[in-house]
Amino acid sequence: MSVTAPAGFEAAGVASGIKEGGLLDMALVSTQDRCGVAAAAVFTTNRAAGAPVEVSRRHLALSGGRVAAVLLNSGNANAATGPQGLAVAERSTELVAQQIGVSSREVLCCSTGLIGIPLGVSPFEHGIPALVGALSSSKDSASQAARAILTTDSRPKEVVVKADGWSIGAMAKGAAMLAPNMATMLAVITTDAVIGPGELDRALRSAVARSFHELSVDGCCSTNDTVIVMASGKGAEPNFSSFVEALQVACDDLAAQMADDAEGATKVATIFVKGAQSSEDAARIARRVGESQLVKCSLHGSDPYWGRVLAEVGAAGVEVDPAKVDISYGGVVVCRGGGPAVYDREALADHMAGRHVMIEVVVGAGPGTARMRTTALSPQYVELNAKTS
Amino acid sequence: MSVTAPAGFEAAGVASGIKEGGLLDMALVSTQDRCGVAAAAVFTTNRAAGAPVEVSRRHLALSGGRVAAVLLNSGNANAATGPQGLAVAERSTELVAQQIGVSSREVLCCSTGLIGIPLGVSPFEHGIPALVGALSSSKDSASQAARAILTTDSRPKEVVVKADGWSIGAMAKGAAMLAPNMATMLAVITTDAVIGPGELDRALRSAVARSFHELSVDGCCSTNDTVIVMASGKGAEPNFSSFVEALQVACDDLAAQMADDAEGATKVATIFVKGAQSSEDAARIARRVGESQLVKCSLHGSDPYWGRVLAEVGAAGVEVDPAKVDISYGGVVVCRGGGPAVYDREALADHMAGRHVMIEVVVGAGPGTARMRTTALSPQYVELNAKTS
Repeated sequence: MSVTAPAGFEAAGVASGIKEGGLLDMALVSTQDRCGVAAAAVFTTNRAAGAPVEVSRRHLALSGGRVAAVLLNSGNANAATGPQGLAVAERSTELVAQQIGVSSREVLCCSTGLIGIPLGVSPFEHGIPALVGALSSSKDSASQAARAILTTDSRPKEVVVKADGWSIGAMAKGAAMLAPNMATMLAVITTDAVIGPGELDRALRSAVARSFHELSVDGCCSTNDTVIVMASGKGAEPNFSSFVEALQVACDDLAAQMADDAEGATKVATIFVKGAQSSEDAARIARRVGESQLVKCSLHGSDPYWGRVLAEVGAAGVEVDPAKVDISYGGVVVCRGGGPAVYDREALADHMAGRHVMIEVVVGAGPGTARMRTTALSPQYVELNAKTS
Repeated sequence: MSVTAPAGFEAAGVASGIKEGGLLDMALVSTQDRCGVAAAAVFTTNRAAGAPVEVSRRHLALSGGRVAAVLLNSGNANAATGPQGLAVAERSTELVAQQIGVSSREVLCCSTGLIGIPLGVSPFEHGIPALVGALSSSKDSASQAARAILTTDSRPKEVVVKADGWSIGAMAKGAAMLAPNMATMLAVITTDAVIGPGELDRALRSAVARSFHELSVDGCCSTNDTVIVMASGKGAEPNFSSFVEALQVACDDLAAQMADDAEGATKVATIFVKGAQSSEDAARIARRVGESQLVKCSLHGSDPYWGRVLAEVGAAGVEVDPAKVDISYGGVVVCRGGGPAVYDREALADHMAGRHVMIEVVVGAGPGTARMRTTALSPQYVELNAKTS
């Protein structure tokens, strides 16, 4: 069900012609009532943001956090496309607004695909009427929408979290150019919880920080990252902290799905850093380890070469005493006090052979902790990204 | 000739047993007079520095910048080896000092190889007397020394720069875990120029900044990086700026050799950034582009996918206007004003097909410029680094 699970939302996915061969490439998520509801969004921090990011940022500010529909396309990121790209993105929201009878400032848009390729308006002229005609709250429609936003993903990413009287549904895409802050990822989250745009914004930022921002596939920050949440208010009013928790569970589930489906990801690893002087220090270390090209190569080889992990701890720009660092894989301590430990080789080999690896790095006795999800760097990843055209 | 080209130096390389199969793995560079001469060094910034780095740093401080000999070994980095590792490194310098009749504070040591593997003293007990016995200023001895420090390098790296009345010779190793500040690289540089330790230190820092610090193979900062320069004073007194220039030429030549011989480097690229508000800004952009996993994948595929370059410019944390960014490959402008340019596809394909790629990124009209050498990320690199044992 994903985005149509909460009351008050409809979705659709169609083939607009951006992708060849009649593949699904355009999606719409709309309120059932065709009117703006409380919404919030987090966008890429990239200064070379794509046209849809510019347009959506502006619309959200103009509408004061009210959104009636989100239009998404795959197959072209509409980034590095100059003023024409901006005009096309703006026009696409006008077309949706006309069709569903709202102001265009209440429509957001997202694009994902190649950067620097001009995108015309005609796919939108074909796709949008078809999308509006197909809007429904059925499971099939939500599933079509979730599939229409995929690029190199091998499968759609959907999640539903149900609470007492309200629920959250979400769909996302993302398989590479994935880094904290955020990734080449799009996510649309819906909820029927009763919540205003201010609280929704706070909740979203908190949830994103503890989910998508803790995922790195290649350390590359995309031009088009967008996470949007819309609240129809058709359900009950939640306790704020329960709502944040549920939103984080939904986002984290999508982040885990992205890691699992990342391009050429022969392994997924979760790095836990503990004992740092602060959580910021812990996060810097976790990110440095998680984005290390050599650590990622070792993961591909199922090789518990902890020396590379220790070298990244030392290079993270954080005050640490290497003589106090312990490192373990799947609970097997391989480095104690910055030097080699004696350990159960069989237990370690068993853990490393699995698809999911856990690396714990204790850097001292401080209160700072952090987590980072990463993936193995494989020859397949390189081949997939060597040629884009 | 490399390190024995300048007057007043001898070298040797032997097999000490650290590497199996009788491979060369230990080298010594000594002054011919067996006495300390002016010296300077730059070490890794990694907080988890290897034992030899700790020992060499201390010796250089104690001796006030006077060095008689540098001992080097490959096959084991003696890093993350705790107090025992430190004792072995210290002991190795004592053995050299006893054999050549100097104080151990006038002996520096360098190790390169795997991290976290205990290293015993016995290879040094065997190797050092053999090294001292074999010391000579012959070309063969210098060449043996240059080969004895290699790890995954496929060939030795040597350079000689001759000036009026003085010269510079150098050898180096480095093929991966290569990043600015610095790399898994060792370099020993000799000169017969008349120059004191203070000026030598200034000259070395300047030369390293414009050579080794402009090279990144994988963004990984090693635990053992060391560049040492020794000046015998047997030649003429150089003009300081000429000396710095010559030192930079020597270091840059070694950096180019490292890039060319980097693990799995199917291509070498030089990134030039121009027009930034400052050189620091330019350097941040150049490094961000040069270390981008996706840009490096595109290089492997000979794919001029400039969208990834622009995305890294936008993510570099520097104030830039994407609408003012031009990007060219080998002089062919592919992106103008942040959008696609019309260009000669044949000329571009010709350039991309070569082994050396030049990427120029103009980000505005400011005075800041920077350069960064990088390599393609290839499936071979991943395979080479997936299993280390």
